[in-house]
Amino acid sequence: MPRSKTIELGHGSGGVLTRELIRDVFLKTFDNPALAPLMDSALVEAAGGELAFTTDAYVVKPLVFPGGDIGKLAVCGTVNDLAVVGARPLALSCAMIVREGIEIELVEQMTRSMQAAAADAGVPIVAGDTKVVERTSCDGLFVTTAGLGAVDAANRPGGAIRDGDAVIVSGTIGEHGTAVLVAREGLKVTSPVVSDCAALNGLVETLRPFFGRIRIMRDPTRGGLATALNEFVEQSDVGLVLREAAIPVSDGVGAICELLGLDPLYLANEGKLVLVCDAGVVGEVLGALRSHPLGARAAVIGAATSKYPAKVCLETAVGGLRLVDMLVTDQLPRIC
Amino acid sequence: MPRSKTIELGHGSGGVLTRELIRDVFLKTFDNPALAPLMDSALVEAAGGELAFTTDAYVVKPLVFPGGDIGKLAVCGTVNDLAVVGARPLALSCAMIVREGIEIELVEQMTRSMQAAAADAGVPIVAGDTKVVERTSCDGLFVTTAGLGAVDAANRPGGAIRDGDAVIVSGTIGEHGTAVLVAREGLKVTSPVVSDCAALNGLVETLRPFFGRIRIMRDPTRGGLATALNEFVEQSDVGLVLREAAIPVSDGVGAICELLGLDPLYLANEGKLVLVCDAGVVGEVLGALRSHPLGARAAVIGAATSKYPAKVCLETAVGGLRLVDMLVTDQLPRIC
Repeated sequence: MPRSKTIELGHGSGGVLTRELIRDVFLKTFDNPALAPLMDSALVEAAGGELAFTTDAYVVKPLVFPGGDIGKLAVCGTVNDLAVVGARPLALSCAMIVREGIEIELVEQMTRSMQAAAADAGVPIVAGDTKVVERTSCDGLFVTTAGLGAVDAANRPGGAIRDGDAVIVSGTIGEHGTAVLVAREGLKVTSPVVSDCAALNGLVETLRPFFGRIRIMRDPTRGGLATALNEFVEQSDVGLVLREAAIPVSDGVGAICELLGLDPLYLANEGKLVLVCDAGVVGEVLGALRSHPLGARAAVIGAATSKYPAKVCLETAVGGLRLVDMLVTDQLPRIC
Repeated sequence: MPRSKTIELGHGSGGVLTRELIRDVFLKTFDNPALAPLMDSALVEAAGGELAFTTDAYVVKPLVFPGGDIGKLAVCGTVNDLAVVGARPLALSCAMIVREGIEIELVEQMTRSMQAAAADAGVPIVAGDTKVVERTSCDGLFVTTAGLGAVDAANRPGGAIRDGDAVIVSGTIGEHGTAVLVAREGLKVTSPVVSDCAALNGLVETLRPFFGRIRIMRDPTRGGLATALNEFVEQSDVGLVLREAAIPVSDGVGAICELLGLDPLYLANEGKLVLVCDAGVVGEVLGALRSHPLGARAAVIGAATSKYPAKVCLETAVGGLRLVDMLVTDQLPRIC
């Protein structure tokens, strides 16, 4: 497939086009060992130990949706990128690009929302910047957050995924993507779906005693669970087999997916954790997750297998096995 | 003056409107001791010592201008925000918001430019994110960088400005603002003006032995030298008197300012340092600055005085004294 010469919406999807852009442009050019692993946060050596450092731009449309808004999302997303590498968040920054003519009250509302989410996660917002562009140059408000976290180099998740390892998700999937879609399109739905947008650092803390036996964690945002799991095994000599019946999906998300022909595996989450751990600690990890309100519906959804290296497969409810590939582009643009 | 209910371009100018937005919205809401000093970088306590953390969004128009482009600017600007608090830059992040339909080659060009500037400053770009928005939702490319630096808490600039302290600038002022203006408006000029866009961490290193006697440093970007100096003395019981004849202005900038009625004191710089230091180290500080190519034209441009508390005044070339106030809005929008 010849590479596109222009940027498409799919380059922001988190799918294959995004990966190509990252690989062919950013990784190639910025080439350095801290960036290369493409983790949710980079690990940086500093005098007193290891730091985690991450950034994300937010362009979600609409700015406000059931369960959150761009401000809450920007804080939670960056806190989560720190948490999933095992870091304790220390500080956040916030850069806003605002369109001329939008109401200052809306900026204040998003700022209050950021502060509430940051206070909830126990992280201060210590640095910021604001730029204003002309009416025709931006939708309204874009927010970019960066985050700084402290890592205990002696106790953080990591290590190759092995045959028999368990795949665990912290709860029902696809709520964020669905909630944004419903809000954007003004769909009338009988069971309202609310974004799961939440800071996961508290939930991750419950897992700290088991970090040594957790291979990898992620918050499956753009591209959903399917994309995160594909990235887990991308260059691995094992693959993952998921059991469809074990994957928690709420009735509301299930109904909308059926109606619109969407696959919840690819829908964004903003308050869920997916991880692969040693099968020997499954009970402890599940117990820890379920001890926290954000992990109440945690479930084992599959296992690693050497039978399908670098692949993610799904045992369907009717007993078939299908490949869960990465999408080239996304089902929904601008969900975060 | 009643506060505007909507965002104006002036809210992004770095002038009085920006200060109001920061004070009334961001500071009020994000209230915390690391943000409150409104320094170029926040200081964050970590296990091994003090860290500097900063962010800036870049929306400059045009994307490429004489002497630089948005990529170089985004790297240099963030490195400079770290450097002026006395931090050694450790790592940068880069979040891009890209418009659907722009050429990937342009994204690559900006990425290469970021990498060249980062390599030049000796700082790796370790984390990134890319979002794509529809054709009508963004001008082309916005870049937000964040930066992480190491601070030696025992040796960094700081302390109240005192009567008799010297004001020093590292070279000619107003080049960046002028270069962007000329490029944007397609002005025909006889002496071309090139942006001074440069990373200042090397220049700042020459000053490290004198940090203890430097009260404050800044890279005077949006709002120019006048705004930076007003911020220096905003709540001080001393003021600053500048000597117009001592302020270095290149012929090219001087000519364009005269032609268009602009004041170089308010034009943005992206590779200049302005500082206030103890009068007893003026010789050493000037010598250190001049030992570095970026400080070759460093000059003492004024002094602190208890005669005009919290004010910045200018002794004009013809012997008058005028107030150099902060502008409410800016001469030029979107210069960074």
